[in-house]
Amino acid sequence: MAPESALRDVAADPVGLHRVLEPAGVLPQQALRLDTRAELWPDEVRIRVERLNLDAASYRQLHRKHGGDGDAIRAEVLEIVRTRGKMQNPETGSGGMLVGTVEEVGDRSPLGLDVGDHVATLVSLTLTPLVIEDALAHWDGSSEQVPTDGYAVLFGRSIAARLPDDIPTQLALSVMDVCGAPALTARHVARYRESGHAPVVAVIGAAGKSGSLCLAAARRSGAARTIGVVPHEQEAALLRAAGLADCVTIADARDPLALRDAVTEAGGPADITVVCVDVPGCEGGAVLATAASGTVIFFSMATSFSAAALGAEGLAADVTMLIGNGFVPGHAETALDLLRAEPGVRTLFEARG
Amino acid sequence: MAPESALRDVAADPVGLHRVLEPAGVLPQQALRLDTRAELWPDEVRIRVERLNLDAASYRQLHRKHGGDGDAIRAEVLEIVRTRGKMQNPETGSGGMLVGTVEEVGDRSPLGLDVGDHVATLVSLTLTPLVIEDALAHWDGSSEQVPTDGYAVLFGRSIAARLPDDIPTQLALSVMDVCGAPALTARHVARYRESGHAPVVAVIGAAGKSGSLCLAAARRSGAARTIGVVPHEQEAALLRAAGLADCVTIADARDPLALRDAVTEAGGPADITVVCVDVPGCEGGAVLATAASGTVIFFSMATSFSAAALGAEGLAADVTMLIGNGFVPGHAETALDLLRAEPGVRTLFEARG
Repeated sequence: MAPESALRDVAADPVGLHRVLEPAGVLPQQALRLDTRAELWPDEVRIRVERLNLDAASYRQLHRKHGGDGDAIRAEVLEIVRTRGKMQNPETGSGGMLVGTVEEVGDRSPLGLDVGDHVATLVSLTLTPLVIEDALAHWDGSSEQVPTDGYAVLFGRSIAARLPDDIPTQLALSVMDVCGAPALTARHVARYRESGHAPVVAVIGAAGKSGSLCLAAARRSGAARTIGVVPHEQEAALLRAAGLADCVTIADARDPLALRDAVTEAGGPADITVVCVDVPGCEGGAVLATAASGTVIFFSMATSFSAAALGAEGLAADVTMLIGNGFVPGHAETALDLLRAEPGVRTLFEARG
Repeated sequence: MAPESALRDVAADPVGLHRVLEPAGVLPQQALRLDTRAELWPDEVRIRVERLNLDAASYRQLHRKHGGDGDAIRAEVLEIVRTRGKMQNPETGSGGMLVGTVEEVGDRSPLGLDVGDHVATLVSLTLTPLVIEDALAHWDGSSEQVPTDGYAVLFGRSIAARLPDDIPTQLALSVMDVCGAPALTARHVARYRESGHAPVVAVIGAAGKSGSLCLAAARRSGAARTIGVVPHEQEAALLRAAGLADCVTIADARDPLALRDAVTEAGGPADITVVCVDVPGCEGGAVLATAASGTVIFFSMATSFSAAALGAEGLAADVTMLIGNGFVPGHAETALDLLRAEPGVRTLFEARG
């Protein structure tokens, strides 16, 4: 650990620049290595970590690489965290999130947390200084849920949410993991209503976690009609039973014309189309399913920027296309409230495991 | 050519589905091969082509592949158009645009064109049925400007703009090529003003073609302050001389903190940040240069969807991020009007050649 005088040499930056060791001048997410000292800068918070939730794509890559050998997976995770000072899979670039208890709060922290709060971090592990202190002795490497003991540091500009007492931790984490989507959907439905027009909202991938939350958020924000698009009858039955959509329709989202026709027949075109299905090639269909002057919100990380931009231009489609931002103030509380209020959302989350 | 009865068998689809030969059911842009028959469906328009403007990335790839051998480049372009029925470079996926004269207008065409109109198509060549009839005999393969004789077909839902009489064709084409950017910028500045707040607008890559138009559009739409960001002193001098920005500042847009600091010192953060610089890695800086609740419009095809989405989340940044759609109704006229009204825009376009 560096002497205190060294710490004073670098001023804290709200985005964590002061913790970047190499290369100089990049953001923590782009850094090769972070400074993991336990001492806090005045705007930081230290968390005693009890569990890491590795990003699913990251865990799958590790599992594949090591042929499912739990010891080898564990050794690699330890090595990554030791050398990088954060859990960022160098292959997938992804991280995950963590659960823990607030251990110390810097006197200028703006996050509003108190020592002892049970929290989940909603910023990625890819930018969070992390030290593992138990050599992952309680993890067999067989799942992305990693029980551990160690600490992590949050910067001034960061996001952590208190875990609720009335919802099982794992369920709350699943909700928080996708909570940006319903919050942004609700915001855009509300903007339509402010301009005097209750929108038709179509959600692509509507029986999934983010999809079901978006449907619930759209209806509660005052959508005129909600359309849930799913890929096959099994999901359609689940979604119908959940009662979250005014109309459930089946289409392959990668087939632009099938998607357009399905949404149109279900009461579209949509004023707002929300893409929650994590497969490539849905850009054209989402644009075609959307009314002129409508809005498409892309939440899928499989979205291609150029396919969306060139696709809309090629279709002469005057639609507003949004990159789904995972951060909207209050997003975790909003999503947990939807889970509490809508039994159908909870059913779908529990069906997804 | 197919007999007329065959043509009647397939109903015209405004996005051109009826012209897709293989694979079945995809949009024309994704098709391997289009139907190039000269006969028109009722909502189509046929253009007598006088020139193709190949996409710069496509031409560079061809030039590199053939070591600058003009005959080989010409042969490959002919072969692509012959086999695919459109000019879509299979390596880059990109096309370009064309200039020609309206030859025939279907009686149900919604495009408002008349026979004899001198037009440029603003939809990509990647989805435009095209036949070359002169074997490119007048092109030596040495530039992306391809004089030719042949025909192309526009669908019901397409975009073509009449070429103005008072502006040289090549200059008008350069303007039309990027005309979506100023139109979308103007729309979002106007929305801010409607909500009672004249926005600060920062344009990254401000001395370029789309950048200079965006600056001019922002000012004319009522921005409170316009900030032009350029990479070095040479462009700064050009932009200062053009008089399009209230403040010109120099920063490497790939360096998030440098970009944030430069925009802040120039009177930011920006309410609207417009990214026009075509290099990867500008997402984080654009987000950091933007005020809370602000808007980032990404026009660069080098934008990474996931870098933008994860970057904003990692920075806990509540910003609206837009995928720059190249189509906004009236965009070509708006951009040409900016060129006419702002000598500084014309100077910068002419400096870029």
